[in-house]
Amino acid sequence: MSEAASAAATRATIGDSEFDRDTTVTRRAPGVYDIDLSAGWTIINAVNGGYLLAVLGRALGDALPHPDPFTVSAHYLTASRPGPAVVRTEAVRTGRTLSTGQASLFQYDDDGNEVERIRVLASYGDLDTLPDDVRTSATPPAIPPMDQCFGPQDGPAPVEGSSAIADRLMLKLDPATLGWALGQPSGRGEMRAWFGLADGRDADPLSMLLAVDALPPTAFELGLKGWVPTVELTVHVRCRPAPGPLRVSIATRNLAGGFLEEDAEVWDSADRLVAQSRQLARARLG
Amino acid sequence: MSEAASAAATRATIGDSEFDRDTTVTRRAPGVYDIDLSAGWTIINAVNGGYLLAVLGRALGDALPHPDPFTVSAHYLTASRPGPAVVRTEAVRTGRTLSTGQASLFQYDDDGNEVERIRVLASYGDLDTLPDDVRTSATPPAIPPMDQCFGPQDGPAPVEGSSAIADRLMLKLDPATLGWALGQPSGRGEMRAWFGLADGRDADPLSMLLAVDALPPTAFELGLKGWVPTVELTVHVRCRPAPGPLRVSIATRNLAGGFLEEDAEVWDSADRLVAQSRQLARARLG
Repeated sequence: MSEAASAAATRATIGDSEFDRDTTVTRRAPGVYDIDLSAGWTIINAVNGGYLLAVLGRALGDALPHPDPFTVSAHYLTASRPGPAVVRTEAVRTGRTLSTGQASLFQYDDDGNEVERIRVLASYGDLDTLPDDVRTSATPPAIPPMDQCFGPQDGPAPVEGSSAIADRLMLKLDPATLGWALGQPSGRGEMRAWFGLADGRDADPLSMLLAVDALPPTAFELGLKGWVPTVELTVHVRCRPAPGPLRVSIATRNLAGGFLEEDAEVWDSADRLVAQSRQLARARLG
Repeated sequence: MSEAASAAATRATIGDSEFDRDTTVTRRAPGVYDIDLSAGWTIINAVNGGYLLAVLGRALGDALPHPDPFTVSAHYLTASRPGPAVVRTEAVRTGRTLSTGQASLFQYDDDGNEVERIRVLASYGDLDTLPDDVRTSATPPAIPPMDQCFGPQDGPAPVEGSSAIADRLMLKLDPATLGWALGQPSGRGEMRAWFGLADGRDADPLSMLLAVDALPPTAFELGLKGWVPTVELTVHVRCRPAPGPLRVSIATRNLAGGFLEEDAEVWDSADRLVAQSRQLARARLG
């Protein structure tokens, strides 16, 4: 827990952290934002899809009259690279309690032409105005205490595919879902982890857009190797998360025809189900 | 099983059924399609969201180079009414095995101005080219034989909210999820049914877009009444369904802050998980 300990010593805060700086979008024109995609959120050379979602979510939060993403549907088109990008947003519909917007992130080819990387449709609202009622049958994931879980820095084996993003996340994987890292995948499509930002910044709706796509692919525990590109990912933010680490539980039940779904749940320190996501991803069959 | 029996006598076929006729879009210009939304797929006065999804799916199937919806994300903006509408599509990206498109359905206000009803992002492919591999831990829903299930026509109590669409669906609800119709909701957010088209047309990817939003709201079994409008619905089509009736199982685990998710699974007669969907809906709290 070295990085968690050091984070506790010098905790970054929401609005003043590397994640906030690296998702800062600059308005160039109404609804149009510039951003320099940071190399700090890459896996191998690919920009993490959850980081991209947070960038788009931040732009839409500025472009729409409501502050919080309630449901964001992203279709991934081409792989993003670190460097300059532009986000173009459109306010599709503005309602009293919800507004719907669209956003696309573009980068540039060698000739300077815009290439679209990802497009999202999203409905925004204000989490702080929601009633407190909760009727849930969902239960928090069974995951050992953080000090019994393992991150890329801990070993026992280096976590395959780790990269720059690993230094910025507090990711502690449930040993029960780490068999793949030891060459012994469980065969169950499950991945569970404690999740936070390494600098101790608490979670908010934007960082939960990162959390749902930050764990190793469940496909690794199914015995598959290599990249599992996301085709589409939809996340529902259901509640503003309480301070403290999140628990993320991801399950895949159906790998068929070279595609699989990844269902993620995000739980906060108050044992509330704060976000749900599902993605359709392509599997490279071994 | 009266309508199922009569359907068996005069089975409609894929491409030649009321559902196919009522989802027929007419190309007005490249990527632009006219449709007359049928009053036959309404619940009370609202056009069913799954029928709208099938209309948009059909337009995108024409506009994109790939035939089958793999993942469709829909954000519902305003309530559609029977009558004329226009669908505007955009091919966002065309790849070798997948293409991504966008479509919006518009109707007209009293001044003839276009009003957007629903917008979707979708990725299409060709289901027939997928490998046959299946590694699944998903199991078919526990649902009694069709003759032990009940449809709007059967009673015991008329199914609240039934409407024109009820005459076009073969919908047989699991008695275990029908408590709400007897004034005794189970308190479990579950809804299960056998599903087909009343005229006996077999299922295909387009009719599965209808299937995922055709059951009564799970909120009824949670003791809530009234309309549960969909904010966003994403469906993954995982396999071309085998002939015969489908089983649809919908579960809600988390009703909080006036919103709930509805997770649907669609199973075919060959016991394959052929589609999955999740929607975020608004609940009117009783």
